[in-house]
Amino acid sequence: MDECRPILNTGLRGFKVATSRISDVNGDIGKIIYRGYLIQDLAQKSSFEEVVYLLLYEKMPNKEELNAFEARLAAERQLAPEFIDALKTRPKDALPMDILQSGVAMLAHHDPDVRELSNEASSRMGLKLIAKFPTVMAAWDRIRNNKEPVDPLPELGHAANFLYMLTGEVPDEEVARFLDVCLVLHAEHTFNASTFAAREVASTRAHMYAAVAAAVGSLSGELHGGANVRVMEMLLKIGSIDKVEDYVKAQLDAGKVIFGLGHAVYKVDDPRAHILAPMSKKMGERVGQPQWFDISTELEKKGKAIFKERKGIDIFTNVDFYSASLYYTMGIPLDFFTPIFAIARISGWAAHVIEEQYAGAAEKPVLYRPESEYVGDYCGPETCEFVPLEDR
Amino acid sequence: MDECRPILNTGLRGFKVATSRISDVNGDIGKIIYRGYLIQDLAQKSSFEEVVYLLLYEKMPNKEELNAFEARLAAERQLAPEFIDALKTRPKDALPMDILQSGVAMLAHHDPDVRELSNEASSRMGLKLIAKFPTVMAAWDRIRNNKEPVDPLPELGHAANFLYMLTGEVPDEEVARFLDVCLVLHAEHTFNASTFAAREVASTRAHMYAAVAAAVGSLSGELHGGANVRVMEMLLKIGSIDKVEDYVKAQLDAGKVIFGLGHAVYKVDDPRAHILAPMSKKMGERVGQPQWFDISTELEKKGKAIFKERKGIDIFTNVDFYSASLYYTMGIPLDFFTPIFAIARISGWAAHVIEEQYAGAAEKPVLYRPESEYVGDYCGPETCEFVPLEDR
Repeated sequence: MDECRPILNTGLRGFKVATSRISDVNGDIGKIIYRGYLIQDLAQKSSFEEVVYLLLYEKMPNKEELNAFEARLAAERQLAPEFIDALKTRPKDALPMDILQSGVAMLAHHDPDVRELSNEASSRMGLKLIAKFPTVMAAWDRIRNNKEPVDPLPELGHAANFLYMLTGEVPDEEVARFLDVCLVLHAEHTFNASTFAAREVASTRAHMYAAVAAAVGSLSGELHGGANVRVMEMLLKIGSIDKVEDYVKAQLDAGKVIFGLGHAVYKVDDPRAHILAPMSKKMGERVGQPQWFDISTELEKKGKAIFKERKGIDIFTNVDFYSASLYYTMGIPLDFFTPIFAIARISGWAAHVIEEQYAGAAEKPVLYRPESEYVGDYCGPETCEFVPLEDR
Repeated sequence: MDECRPILNTGLRGFKVATSRISDVNGDIGKIIYRGYLIQDLAQKSSFEEVVYLLLYEKMPNKEELNAFEARLAAERQLAPEFIDALKTRPKDALPMDILQSGVAMLAHHDPDVRELSNEASSRMGLKLIAKFPTVMAAWDRIRNNKEPVDPLPELGHAANFLYMLTGEVPDEEVARFLDVCLVLHAEHTFNASTFAAREVASTRAHMYAAVAAAVGSLSGELHGGANVRVMEMLLKIGSIDKVEDYVKAQLDAGKVIFGLGHAVYKVDDPRAHILAPMSKKMGERVGQPQWFDISTELEKKGKAIFKERKGIDIFTNVDFYSASLYYTMGIPLDFFTPIFAIARISGWAAHVIEEQYAGAAEKPVLYRPESEYVGDYCGPETCEFVPLEDR
């Protein structure tokens, strides 16, 4: 039970606020499951589209179901011309996550489903958002670089099509598969901050777009989705493998963290890091930049050892640690690392919004409405006497 | 203390999740205070601009401070031409709250402050949002009706200027003051769902716009900001005073609620309802439509009596009950009731975001990250065995 512990100013850490059928994370043993399935199986043996199907419809699709679903997703990738027109009005130096948040909210304007409160409408809106996220972000990267957006190619898979729209070139199969695995690994992770924000908004019966825009806002924070950017900035700053040890010591001397080491939930290595690491290695070799992976492994080794030595504690790699160098060597701009996280996580957000609003259809949804402890002491324990403006 | 009670699936009702110096609501006795001051004093003796100052800077301004602050707010009302261009690309039947959510996120694109994590930058962004909310909504109402947006008039107060931008005519002073009081009454209300959403997003260190866009999404839900619209739809449906009693009985027979009666927090009449009622009466008389106020009072009387008689419980009017007829007789379109709520509440949201990120500067902000109880039973208590696609 969660009770009998102080809750005030804890950020609700460790408190189970709701039941969910979507995923489970056991940080003690590094086990993540999506609707019953181990994340290792999903990452190594299925595609992002299969995982999206699983998250939305609660079963793994058979071949026929998957084909139909892939076709539906591909058909929803396109953006309205007015939407592209709106993107073209945006200042070119806007932060990509801010473009995504406004983009999600703008997509609502084009969709009559926002007027329907039903499981079906919510599910359709979720599917459209999953389909359109890569198009919005790729279009924005083109527009900010004074290029015309590239239309989606329906015959490409979700990950491959994103890379195609971003670069204008059909990607190598191995590279597309690396991104596909990343999307699977980032698709879902219980009540993380952005998912909780989405559920919180959905609990008022706001529609899917309104809830997902909140999640995008939450993910844009540096304590949440911004972490893999910080990891890459750190790797670039370190620059070479022989500087790792000094860097770790200097950070710890200054009381600072090593980005990508440590996580609120895990007491062992994040299982996602073990799947990402070999991809990062291969990708670095492919593009002739093996140093980022090498610095990462050295940083992991030295970081863990020095933490243990100085603080007597074990510290573990999290999901951001190896995704940073992987995205970088794939040629993804640094400020698109968090949008890629969003392109994956939208699938989990959509499942959570639907669950928040329609799971246990008989039950009335409970609106999240906590209380606060008032500690204002402006006039001592009394209310302040009102003084008219003239006499202040 | 909040502990020793089940928290699972309660929507955190009754749980104090954080300390706050911003406001206090005592639903048992109907007492609301903003930073030490009673809401009745603020509504009857000060302006919205004074209350915004109080919420942001933690004191009532003197005459000089207020003048300077009003000038700063007025100077920030204008929207960038590219922003108006973007609004013009939006489908005319978009929901106004969806326009506002996208608008908030788009404002971020124009503001270099989004790159600065500081109390000062956050405070500046809050002020800009407070200043621009009325401009965004008035511009949208003009655009959707194929009219050019009206530029703000710096010499008008916040409420009067909104009505001016909406209609193109400088409003009567009494009408402007009625709206001003409404804005004061709706400015702040502890950890309501939208404020909690804003704080949740801000806790990841996302910027002001990202957090406020989440709050707008939350407010758009019919269980939150949509309630006063439901009240007016109900009054229009009832149509005349003699139909009130039958309506109440029919609703209760069908197990349905009377909109505007009952609230999660209050066990007496919402004190805001008592301030709104006389304004609704006067406004109805001004425009020769006294019936909406009359139906409302009859509904309050009959609703309370029949509830008591049938269920043995007392039920109380909430803030939405008299604001509905007041906004309607002021000529506000029904789908702008919730945006007006937002135009007021942005002041509270801004204060909460700043408090979430910078209050107790020494303390590290705690990111809201609750847990969930996994109840997926897809393969019984075990994880599901992965079956390759070909064999499904």
